Amino acid sequence: MLGTHEGRPSYRHTIRVAYVDTDAAGVVHHSQYFRYLEQGRVELMRAVGVDYLSFERDRGLALPVVEAQLKYRAPARFDDLLALDTWLSLGSRAKLVFASRLVRSVDGVLLHTGTVTIACVTMPKGAICSVPEDLREKLGA
Amino acid sequence: MLGTHEGRPSYRHTIRVAYVDTDAAGVVHHSQYFRYLEQGRVELMRAVGVDYLSFERDRGLALPVVEAQLKYRAPARFDDLLALDTWLSLGSRAKLVFASRLVRSVDGVLLHTGTVTIACVTMPKGAICSVPEDLREKLGA
Amino acid sequence: MLGTHEGRPSYRHTIRVAYVDTDAAGVVHHSQYFRYLEQGRVELMRAVGVDYLSFERDRGLALPVVEAQLKYRAPARFDDLLALDTWLSLGSRAKLVFASRLVRSVDGVLLHTGTVTIACVTMPKGAICSVPEDLREKLGA
Amino acid sequence: MLGTHEGRPSYRHTIRVAYVDTDAAGVVHHSQYFRYLEQGRVELMRAVGVDYLSFERDRGLALPVVEAQLKYRAPARFDDLLALDTWLSLGSRAKLVFASRLVRSVDGVLLHTGTVTIACVTMPKGAICSVPEDLREKLGA
Repeated sequence: MLGTHEGRPSYRHTIRVAYVDTDAAGVVHHSQYFRYLEQGRVELMRAVGVDYLSFERDRGLALPVVEAQLKYRAPARFDDLLALDTWLSLGSRAKLVFASRLVRSVDGVLLHTGTVTIACVTMPKGAICSVPEDLREKLGA
Repeated sequence: MLGTHEGRPSYRHTIRVAYVDTDAAGVVHHSQYFRYLEQGRVELMRAVGVDYLSFERDRGLALPVVEAQLKYRAPARFDDLLALDTWLSLGSRAKLVFASRLVRSVDGVLLHTGTVTIACVTMPKGAICSVPEDLREKLGA
Repeated sequence: MLGTHEGRPSYRHTIRVAYVDTDAAGVVHHSQYFRYLEQGRVELMRAVGVDYLSFERDRGLALPVVEAQLKYRAPARFDDLLALDTWLSLGSRAKLVFASRLVRSVDGVLLHTGTVTIACVTMPKGAICSVPEDLREKLGA
Repeated sequence: MLGTHEGRPSYRHTIRVAYVDTDAAGVVHHSQYFRYLEQGRVELMRAVGVDYLSFERDRGLALPVVEAQLKYRAPARFDDLLALDTWLSLGSRAKLVFASRLVRSVDGVLLHTGTVTIACVTMPKGAICSVPEDLREKLGA
């Protein structure tokens, strides 16, 4: 569901926590949040008109994660329904910074916030290049 | 550690169970055994002189899993040391079948057995091709 | 979406392939199908009135995988939409066998079939017990 | 291998990149570094005399990740041997901050740095409690 965050497009993605996402402490393992955040970015891009599969295939570019800052505020558990909001918090030729808020749908408790910084590279060489202008514009940069 | 199983090379690979491998039932999630079995096959191949990285890169081939039969006999848990034996149980031009036995090192309890069938395909097209003869020979087929 | 397969309830679950599910061969890694199949079983159970979270919590039981037979027929790729049908193929006091068919939604190509055998155990001891009759009945056994 | 970093114990853990760790871009997926870092912390603790399995079981405590700051500097690839150094960069009653440096063994190229902040909670309630003094002392806090 496409909305806005401070004037930029924001996407709300719904996640059902899978059993495989949990660990022996009975909660979602901290590594799994990267799965959720990645889905959030892909769906935000799709919602603003950028199909990431075509982006990689047609332009020969990729968008690797180069930095992440994550805060785990409360645990998610098996079968929880989660609502993940994702938006661009900063966009330049050098990088895209995506921010996110993950809440438990049933009671709105905030579980996780984070920013993930993405660079743009040519494939398959992996050389750093500029983030395409149309991508930045569609994300509201 | 390279040994033999019914006259063919067999490799014993040691695994330490990671916390991320476990699930909310307090045991290793059934999907994780594929990680262990893959490591077992890669190390068996290395031990008989086939570097899988070079195999893919230099020959333009890949060895996808096309079938698996797995039996879970007892659970593995966080921090368990496991010993995984892997060997070729059947090798032909059409496929390689790898068999494995996974035991808990501390008491030798059998945790898991399985067979994983591999085909050979050209990359990046993914067209089925013959399993190279030198690979089959090195694995004892 | 609940339907039937040979007179038993069958559930169709839709999956969007995530980037994290893929591997360096450009396709979904064979271990990831266990994630999809687990979601299929959980959603089939929910659709027939068994909430697996409550099942574990209220009855003190778990349903571990004890056997799996999987056939990989064609590769899935990033961003593919998949349709997974899951149904009970055999149910007894000793075990539940779930069967599944996974197809690529866009063209109906069959990607994967499998059976996953589940036992019932008491928690946290993990002692084998009978599969509850109401669970078997709801699944059509 | 136990060493020191600015007077505190530091542990060097060796990692072999598995095929399952890679993604369709041909490199290790960013989520997998959490697996490596977790292993690094567990092995550092073991090296200074804290068995994390016993820690959870005997004390009824757990050490969840509450914050992470990760920098991806160069990609890791299938079959790379990696050397991961882990040490405590800050330890208090409220939290433990672990720092890490991950290099490719063959040429020493720095791939990844990060800090992971850990809290201490009682199990199974998950209530925040003080980090045990003996744990902090063994880690050099």
